[in-house]
Amino acid sequence: MLNFTVGPVMLSQEVMETGAQQVPYFRTSEFSAVMKGNERLVKKFAHLDDKGKVVFLTASGTGAMEATVMNVLSHQDKVLVINGGSFGHRFVQLCQIHHVPCTEILPEWGHDITDEQLAAYDGQGYTALLVNIDETSTGVLYNIDRLTRFCQANHALLIVDAISSFLADPLDMTRSHIDVMIAGSQKALACPPGISLVALSERALRRVENNDVESMYFDLKDALRNAERGQTPFTPAVGILLQINTRLRKIDEDGGDAALVRKTSELAANFRNSIQDMPFEIVSHSLSNAVTPLHPTTAKAYDIFTTLKDEYNIWVCPNGGDLKDKVFRVGHLGALTIEDNQTLIRALKDMQKRGLL
Amino acid sequence: MLNFTVGPVMLSQEVMETGAQQVPYFRTSEFSAVMKGNERLVKKFAHLDDKGKVVFLTASGTGAMEATVMNVLSHQDKVLVINGGSFGHRFVQLCQIHHVPCTEILPEWGHDITDEQLAAYDGQGYTALLVNIDETSTGVLYNIDRLTRFCQANHALLIVDAISSFLADPLDMTRSHIDVMIAGSQKALACPPGISLVALSERALRRVENNDVESMYFDLKDALRNAERGQTPFTPAVGILLQINTRLRKIDEDGGDAALVRKTSELAANFRNSIQDMPFEIVSHSLSNAVTPLHPTTAKAYDIFTTLKDEYNIWVCPNGGDLKDKVFRVGHLGALTIEDNQTLIRALKDMQKRGLL
Repeated sequence: MLNFTVGPVMLSQEVMETGAQQVPYFRTSEFSAVMKGNERLVKKFAHLDDKGKVVFLTASGTGAMEATVMNVLSHQDKVLVINGGSFGHRFVQLCQIHHVPCTEILPEWGHDITDEQLAAYDGQGYTALLVNIDETSTGVLYNIDRLTRFCQANHALLIVDAISSFLADPLDMTRSHIDVMIAGSQKALACPPGISLVALSERALRRVENNDVESMYFDLKDALRNAERGQTPFTPAVGILLQINTRLRKIDEDGGDAALVRKTSELAANFRNSIQDMPFEIVSHSLSNAVTPLHPTTAKAYDIFTTLKDEYNIWVCPNGGDLKDKVFRVGHLGALTIEDNQTLIRALKDMQKRGLL
Repeated sequence: MLNFTVGPVMLSQEVMETGAQQVPYFRTSEFSAVMKGNERLVKKFAHLDDKGKVVFLTASGTGAMEATVMNVLSHQDKVLVINGGSFGHRFVQLCQIHHVPCTEILPEWGHDITDEQLAAYDGQGYTALLVNIDETSTGVLYNIDRLTRFCQANHALLIVDAISSFLADPLDMTRSHIDVMIAGSQKALACPPGISLVALSERALRRVENNDVESMYFDLKDALRNAERGQTPFTPAVGILLQINTRLRKIDEDGGDAALVRKTSELAANFRNSIQDMPFEIVSHSLSNAVTPLHPTTAKAYDIFTTLKDEYNIWVCPNGGDLKDKVFRVGHLGALTIEDNQTLIRALKDMQKRGLL
């Protein structure tokens, strides 16, 4: 199967070879070195300074989002959430579950927020801003500079879920004054799902240190203490962490985050150019390199997903809920090539010929 | 490396081959069928009746323990915990974190609890009993029949962490009136770590349904709702779930849980017979088939772990904390054979010759 979903994505040959091996015992100095290497390279690619730290959780990205809300925020905060789709909505729900006071900004569907929208919340005592920098459900990439300016002016923490954006779009925690960056193993890291990570600035680390959470599994203080020696409090997904190590080292060899972002951008541009004459509307007006969200004007989105899967051995990414029949997405993450794009285009053109599009 | 730890354990060829493959997109009927198959076979091997259900969590066993305490119990319960080592202690901590009133029974070190110990808590309104049926830190297997009798007499829920015992020791949820059984991917299931599972009786399901948890990631109501259609609320460790499917189907072909328990028992007996003349004391007086905990009388336990690792390419399982120098463990889980046992014995005998033991 050729996989254009936004996760799990296609794995490289090296990552698959690591996955084919026995999983080692992990309470060893050898595995600690792997974990230290993973932290070092994530910090390098996220442009996190020396005082920041990274923890790896055996959980989906939602687990890392919840751990962040629980450990970095509290009922004493006043939080602004950009809610532009299902992942923004998830941040709102997490704040509600954990009694963190929050206000949501609802962007126009498929659009970035505006300066005017944000200005309405200026000087009102907001202590943190939560954003899914690429709202994956609609493929909208928010302008980080606008959010940084707001947070700097309001002395607010900037908490960025970059699950589908990290290593696909430019991201610089230091330059953009990002306090928390969340990522997952199955997006541009192009490993199997099962690991998520939370990168924390010095300011965020102080928050974690002074917070008491009613959780053992999501106690980041404990995770950070164990990470000092390259370990985790509980048995992690050791195999996936080794695959992440393989992948991070390869990204480093190939020119680091900048080169991977460039490659992803080229792949996305190639696809978007190739569909100009086809009956699709791109529904995001602020595109991430990670994904192209499409509204088919002549067919149902979910039918296109099903036909591509069953008759062409190609997965694109369906949407859920209200968008099921309206939108499907084509991802540009993982071990995909320009030739793979063209295979998908040929399949779509064949569907056009058959009257299915 | 030859791996005698208690997890991660050696993978079979088939499980490694599944791990070598691309990870598929999972919001499909094909993956739902895999998940349904996993649930069906876990229910079969755990002897859970038709009304019970199984949820799979992307988390370590501790995550599943915490989810169980949060979803099945509440501050209105009065819970008895068998605390015979670090995993029993973990259950006590989890009850404390989540405000579940609990009392601990401390067995004599290395021993099962006695009828007299348990009788002291009879008729006192206990609503649930929590036990790590194989306390993996000391290799003590508790007698399930004694616990079942207590729970039946006291109308208490029986909650069994069988993380290292499931498929290694006999276990029958129906016959033993077990309400919750917790297991993990990296023990006798012999897959990479990253997935844990919670099997729930009808009575436990009612508890979950009537409980409100302050958690999104560990909301078992949501997990159960999604499991109805063979799905999970969040992206799971898809690759490991496919490996679990491969493994469960092979166990079924090979005679099911009874055959695997018998094989593990034979492997454990072979090892225990082979070390009779060696300077080791078996520290558990109630052994599980999963692991043999050894106190070396002529050397430090951690030194033996290190020498076997660095000079013989063999991992045994070290203990932590106070037991670090006193106890190491030899596991009998995963793709190990009688010949592998003999390779370990030869290494230990060689260490004896060299004066290291």
